[in-house]
Amino acid sequence: MTPDEMQALVERLYPLCRSITGDGVRKTLAIVGEYLPSLRAHEVPTGTHVLDWEVPREWNIRDAHITDIATGERIVDFRELNLHVVGYSTPVHATMMMEDLAPHLHTLPDQPSLVPYRTSYYAETWGFCLSEETRASMGDGPFEVVIDSTLEDGHLTYGEAVIPGASDREVLVSCHVCHPSLANDNLAGIAVAVALAQRLREPHHTFRFIFAPGTIGAITWLARNRERVDSIAHGLTIACAGDEGQIHYKRSRRGDAPIDRAFEYVLQGRPHTILDFSPYGYDERQYCSPGFNLPVGSLTRTPYAGYPEYHTSGDNPSFVSPAGMSDTLETLWETVQVLERDRTYLNLSPYGEPQLGRRGLYASLGGRSDTEQAQMAMLWVLNLSDGEHGLLDIARRSDLPFATVAAAADALRDAGLLKELQP
Amino acid sequence: MTPDEMQALVERLYPLCRSITGDGVRKTLAIVGEYLPSLRAHEVPTGTHVLDWEVPREWNIRDAHITDIATGERIVDFRELNLHVVGYSTPVHATMMMEDLAPHLHTLPDQPSLVPYRTSYYAETWGFCLSEETRASMGDGPFEVVIDSTLEDGHLTYGEAVIPGASDREVLVSCHVCHPSLANDNLAGIAVAVALAQRLREPHHTFRFIFAPGTIGAITWLARNRERVDSIAHGLTIACAGDEGQIHYKRSRRGDAPIDRAFEYVLQGRPHTILDFSPYGYDERQYCSPGFNLPVGSLTRTPYAGYPEYHTSGDNPSFVSPAGMSDTLETLWETVQVLERDRTYLNLSPYGEPQLGRRGLYASLGGRSDTEQAQMAMLWVLNLSDGEHGLLDIARRSDLPFATVAAAADALRDAGLLKELQP
Amino acid sequence: MTPDEMQALVERLYPLCRSITGDGVRKTLAIVGEYLPSLRAHEVPTGTHVLDWEVPREWNIRDAHITDIATGERIVDFRELNLHVVGYSTPVHATMMMEDLAPHLHTLPDQPSLVPYRTSYYAETWGFCLSEETRASMGDGPFEVVIDSTLEDGHLTYGEAVIPGASDREVLVSCHVCHPSLANDNLAGIAVAVALAQRLREPHHTFRFIFAPGTIGAITWLARNRERVDSIAHGLTIACAGDEGQIHYKRSRRGDAPIDRAFEYVLQGRPHTILDFSPYGYDERQYCSPGFNLPVGSLTRTPYAGYPEYHTSGDNPSFVSPAGMSDTLETLWETVQVLERDRTYLNLSPYGEPQLGRRGLYASLGGRSDTEQAQMAMLWVLNLSDGEHGLLDIARRSDLPFATVAAAADALRDAGLLKELQP
Repeated sequence: MTPDEMQALVERLYPLCRSITGDGVRKTLAIVGEYLPSLRAHEVPTGTHVLDWEVPREWNIRDAHITDIATGERIVDFRELNLHVVGYSTPVHATMMMEDLAPHLHTLPDQPSLVPYRTSYYAETWGFCLSEETRASMGDGPFEVVIDSTLEDGHLTYGEAVIPGASDREVLVSCHVCHPSLANDNLAGIAVAVALAQRLREPHHTFRFIFAPGTIGAITWLARNRERVDSIAHGLTIACAGDEGQIHYKRSRRGDAPIDRAFEYVLQGRPHTILDFSPYGYDERQYCSPGFNLPVGSLTRTPYAGYPEYHTSGDNPSFVSPAGMSDTLETLWETVQVLERDRTYLNLSPYGEPQLGRRGLYASLGGRSDTEQAQMAMLWVLNLSDGEHGLLDIARRSDLPFATVAAAADALRDAGLLKELQP
Repeated sequence: MTPDEMQALVERLYPLCRSITGDGVRKTLAIVGEYLPSLRAHEVPTGTHVLDWEVPREWNIRDAHITDIATGERIVDFRELNLHVVGYSTPVHATMMMEDLAPHLHTLPDQPSLVPYRTSYYAETWGFCLSEETRASMGDGPFEVVIDSTLEDGHLTYGEAVIPGASDREVLVSCHVCHPSLANDNLAGIAVAVALAQRLREPHHTFRFIFAPGTIGAITWLARNRERVDSIAHGLTIACAGDEGQIHYKRSRRGDAPIDRAFEYVLQGRPHTILDFSPYGYDERQYCSPGFNLPVGSLTRTPYAGYPEYHTSGDNPSFVSPAGMSDTLETLWETVQVLERDRTYLNLSPYGEPQLGRRGLYASLGGRSDTEQAQMAMLWVLNLSDGEHGLLDIARRSDLPFATVAAAADALRDAGLLKELQP
Repeated sequence: MTPDEMQALVERLYPLCRSITGDGVRKTLAIVGEYLPSLRAHEVPTGTHVLDWEVPREWNIRDAHITDIATGERIVDFRELNLHVVGYSTPVHATMMMEDLAPHLHTLPDQPSLVPYRTSYYAETWGFCLSEETRASMGDGPFEVVIDSTLEDGHLTYGEAVIPGASDREVLVSCHVCHPSLANDNLAGIAVAVALAQRLREPHHTFRFIFAPGTIGAITWLARNRERVDSIAHGLTIACAGDEGQIHYKRSRRGDAPIDRAFEYVLQGRPHTILDFSPYGYDERQYCSPGFNLPVGSLTRTPYAGYPEYHTSGDNPSFVSPAGMSDTLETLWETVQVLERDRTYLNLSPYGEPQLGRRGLYASLGGRSDTEQAQMAMLWVLNLSDGEHGLLDIARRSDLPFATVAAAADALRDAGLLKELQP
């Protein structure tokens, strides 16, 4: 998947009105499924108990507008931008004066040209989001106020795609799919996840991609997969993956999980910021709740609420770029390569150095003052393969490239000098 | 107790001739008892074995002077300043020439106008302390040399005031009361302790205030309370509490006891110095001896031996101030508030986030890019309440105010989401 | 042994043609034995299995040269410099043209006046080392090419000198003796080790000096002493001990072994560099292999491969100096003093401070604002002697000189207040 194809996917998904339930999510998963044939959509009925929560009623919307009765003009029109309706708004069909309408209007006075994004999943209400500029232009009414929505028993929908690996240890990649027309948050994250999935070929780990509505979706997946979580070796949420800012990696709650160390290692050579875990942000909140405490970090460019366009109409496809998503993808890919090759070995000849020369592993002409990296890597792997250090630990400790260390370990293992320890 | 009342207490206690035993301590405790009605004086007989020590004979003094026989002038006069006599001096009544008197005279040649403070508790001797200026003005004699003291079997006296709390876990506050006319060391410390005790109202912890002679007093208390020390959750010695210098907190021997972390937290926003434990200073030496190893820190302004007036006549009531004592008290009070409210909870709904909105704990309108501190605090408390983190840990980790975190925990506990773990 | 005597020993050993086996090592050990009468030479037969290795055939050489047949001139002459022959070269007696000879010639094009040092222990070959300048002056031949060597079953030789101590806990000092005419690497190291051994008088630890060929010698010693290694409390390889560079101490694999902490402590006051362990360098590679993981550090001045003369004819006796070796020796000696005196004690009177005055351990006149280091040291030793801290730990924590702390501990032990804990 090329950078331009990622951008095209963002633009294709952008107009859909996603929410935590409803047909917007279903259509999104159908499109993602064109790229990932193994994607399965799961439907979980309203009222299902999931951890401390309950699957809510399903919300769908066909149209909404505020029309100036005097002029017949649609002043606020859902068909132009789905952010105009507060998510989960109950149906309305009324004629109102501004006096009564005003409490239902949301604007951003400090960003007068932008439309905010608002939802009210768990408290029944309705409302419109509009720019402060539009708001200022509205008179006293009367207005025709229409929200043609339904809030009924139905299902919560999430998608799951599994790419089987040689090992049943899993890498979890999770994206939220509940945001309507917001590009960086999180269509860019979805596009990067899809591109990663397409690139994987017979991986070592089993990779599991989750496309689920934020919070309730992750909670639903966790509730239905409590046994499976023990197989998760590494995990990641991806969001805000396409803006111009530098990469931010937020550590898992554990703080030193292998994925935390892998990102720290890969990011050394790039502009980046590493953040400690906090219980806010994306669905790492759920995966890293203390009962699960999974090794799940979070990859973004500019993080949560860190840019003025965040959760506004300014977060449209022009706010993300092929280059931004591509940089996120390549950073992620390099990290995945480390996770895929990282192993912990046991030196089977731990007393003194084994004679590498006899096994063809060492240059035979001694006394030279330079030493090859490959030979240094063998010595490091032998010395630290005591069961306490993995290959990434050894690469960090020795300041040798991870790939060199991994290649040295392969050679030593093939020579019968190392045994892989199971995690 | 106002700052001025603390100063008045210092001035009232200043003239008394305290030592490690004797009526000066008894009179001091009687005055303290006017402020703290629960204060009890304990009398421990001479010869009582206390840990590795023995309670010494009791020392009392009525008068002392060096009089120039030629002029009849009292050159050195105990009635003017009780520092003039070396503490625990044996009785003397003699006529002496300077030649014989000189070995018994102590001055500070580098601070010629100041009178030093000297004692000799455990080696029988006698002596006078005087300014170098006075010493230089003295002729060859003859002098009438009088020390009207007694050193006899009697008692060691210490005071103890207990303010019962909801918990039988105790906070120990210890001040030495053996120094004669020295204001900062330690009448200011006594005044701050008294003010703290007066301010406590139905505390969570039981507070125990010890007013005891240095070293032998703390050792005596420890010897008589070996069972009780297991109840001490937090402890503090207070000294040098009224000078103009900045606050110094000296860590307990443990180095990361809750009281150490509480002071570190509270002092962040104030000029201060934090010192590692050392086995010198005040009675934290005894409380932090390796057999007891109690979580007892030490609070001072300018610490032990850190100011030129230390252990001289320069440490008089004008060396301390209402403002200095008040600042010490408020710092201490803030720390006490943290210790009083700090708890370790267990999240009873640790799998995923519990649904706070359903419980009225969370704003219902989602999608806003700002988040209230109170809600962040709830998320932090839930996430870290795994039995390994207390509220102060959570405040430090989250960079949220302790009071906000504690209030969040109260709300979550009241909603049945947290269970308090007993320490 | 004076600095000049160390230099004289280097110069005496310099001409011998050492290798990993053969008479050069035997002659070296015979000379060292003149200084250390307890030195024993061990002979281990060719073919003996030692850990993962096998003792190789013994190599000896009498003469070697490349002679220009036209002029009769010895262009390259082993009798002038033994580096001219690749170590372990098989016998040759041939007339060759440059075309055939060239693959057997080794030079340093970037250091055209220096002769490199090369060996080929485990791949049978032969070769000459010469300066690039000499190489450039040679014509097409014919040349008489002679290496009068033997490679036959025989023995590997290493030396061992033991200085018995009061304790059977050992200090291991190991030097490689396989390098021919190279002064800093490692005749200077040998000289410093000999000087240390001579200076020891009834030590606390048993000191064991190993003079063995690099790699195979240490491996042979380890194979024959697998039981003994449990007695090694501290160990050190010494190399490159005489150049002008500053001291480098390389930590043991453990990283915080007592010898690591002792060197860190002693080096504080000197120009130095401390290096983390790496599995390259000298025989610490073998001692610190993960199966043994001995507390063996490495002491050098400029370390392994860190100077242009390294492994060339430039590393001759003028490259080292009496001052350089003396500085290495004195640093080592000071560290040995710390290791010899370091102990872990248990305070037998841990509840409160014991009464030092009664035991004559404390100045009796109290109230003075200055405190003697010796008394502070006693308080520190008492406070930290809980079984978790040794005297070096206490010196570091208290910022008092180690000797002061050790003297305080002696006084307290003599007073019956401390009991030594066995390591």
